[in-house]
Amino acid sequence: MSVASQMLETSPAAPGYRSEDLVECIEACLACAQACTACADACLAEAMVAELRRCITSDLNCADLCQAAGGILSRQTAYMPEMTRVALTACRDACRLCADECEHHAEIHEHCRVCAEACRRCEQACERLLTL
Amino acid sequence: MSVASQMLETSPAAPGYRSEDLVECIEACLACAQACTACADACLAEAMVAELRRCITSDLNCADLCQAAGGILSRQTAYMPEMTRVALTACRDACRLCADECEHHAEIHEHCRVCAEACRRCEQACERLLTL
Amino acid sequence: MSVASQMLETSPAAPGYRSEDLVECIEACLACAQACTACADACLAEAMVAELRRCITSDLNCADLCQAAGGILSRQTAYMPEMTRVALTACRDACRLCADECEHHAEIHEHCRVCAEACRRCEQACERLLTL
Amino acid sequence: MSVASQMLETSPAAPGYRSEDLVECIEACLACAQACTACADACLAEAMVAELRRCITSDLNCADLCQAAGGILSRQTAYMPEMTRVALTACRDACRLCADECEHHAEIHEHCRVCAEACRRCEQACERLLTL
Repeated sequence: MSVASQMLETSPAAPGYRSEDLVECIEACLACAQACTACADACLAEAMVAELRRCITSDLNCADLCQAAGGILSRQTAYMPEMTRVALTACRDACRLCADECEHHAEIHEHCRVCAEACRRCEQACERLLTL
Repeated sequence: MSVASQMLETSPAAPGYRSEDLVECIEACLACAQACTACADACLAEAMVAELRRCITSDLNCADLCQAAGGILSRQTAYMPEMTRVALTACRDACRLCADECEHHAEIHEHCRVCAEACRRCEQACERLLTL
Repeated sequence: MSVASQMLETSPAAPGYRSEDLVECIEACLACAQACTACADACLAEAMVAELRRCITSDLNCADLCQAAGGILSRQTAYMPEMTRVALTACRDACRLCADECEHHAEIHEHCRVCAEACRRCEQACERLLTL
Repeated sequence: MSVASQMLETSPAAPGYRSEDLVECIEACLACAQACTACADACLAEAMVAELRRCITSDLNCADLCQAAGGILSRQTAYMPEMTRVALTACRDACRLCADECEHHAEIHEHCRVCAEACRRCEQACERLLTL
């Protein structure tokens, strides 16, 4: 059982979502934030870095919003449905935009392919919570 | 001239907004993130902390989204209008929700009054950029 | 294979540490940052919240430094050994202090026990990289 | 009076430092984090971006530690002197390393000059609190 899952099970707060859905989304947010941070760094190491400016910026921006969403979803005390929807919507949209960008380079750069996959998983996990 | 303003003036990137508007919004985001972090801490120090759970959670959540927006607005290379709108919308909405919450306690707790003002300034600065 | 591990394998940067050690530490940092964020939230939900002020503050502070370290370790392009040591040292020390605090409540609050374990794992992962 | 200063004055917590010193350091941390974020972005926009990889990485890393320190200093409830020293030490050292790096390019890139100044101010503000 993951740490995020154990934390949720041992909290006295009543979560706003089913535990499995919430843990999946928290973990998708954190994995995507890390992937985006690492993809920006890998793009910077490429010989063609000058052509990857847009991808680097997109990665850094997406990492910031995934990080924010992962934190907000980890706070289930005094649960605020509207604030959570604001964070999920922003994270879903940022992941979609970043995945679109990374997919342009996915055939050339493996790190963009892996990052795009992490973005799509996070986009879908956010979308799932938003439609519950 | 503030550091944020000097940074913008010395960057080779062509910003997506007028410098004055952009700097005002970046600074409002960072001031609000700090105010929310400090308000959560001040609420925690209050004797009636158990009644301030919702305010503390709201502060921490709003700080995360203001921080993300301040970072995203500071990146003007390979400017992505849609990503910026995603961040501004989330930050504006989080600030509105957090200001609503803090205003409930503004007459009792001065720190909630100051924090609510910082949230309203940030809400308005984001709204201004969104309507340009 | 985890996303962090795939990102490292597909990056053109030559990492400053063995991949396994680096991935283990990045994942320990991110898991600890999330556990601390969730433990602060769970403490806030407890009836005895007024007695958990120090634990909440400790959790929030430790989360900030783990998050910073996880990001810095994810950047292996233009690797800066001294900057990495600064981040690892701060993260290790913050995790030790936070684990000490959470262990005081570990028998009463399961979330503090789980969080203390995440802090100890992260403390050890940072210490391992520092002694390589 | 700045927002950070008003927040500190209206908090029931007894700060671990004189208000003026604490506010100066919090504001130096936040200004430096923003300057580093913006300098990384400005470096990315330069024609010679491939020669600025080390500066970009240094900026991103320094921003993470300044951000962490600014948050930790904003929490004065259940003040933890040792945790605060850990954060101040890391932030001071990161700012020194990043200033050293940015100063190499300060004559060519104005944004590196402004960023180096923000790093030096933050380095000194952290050092001052550490020697009190």
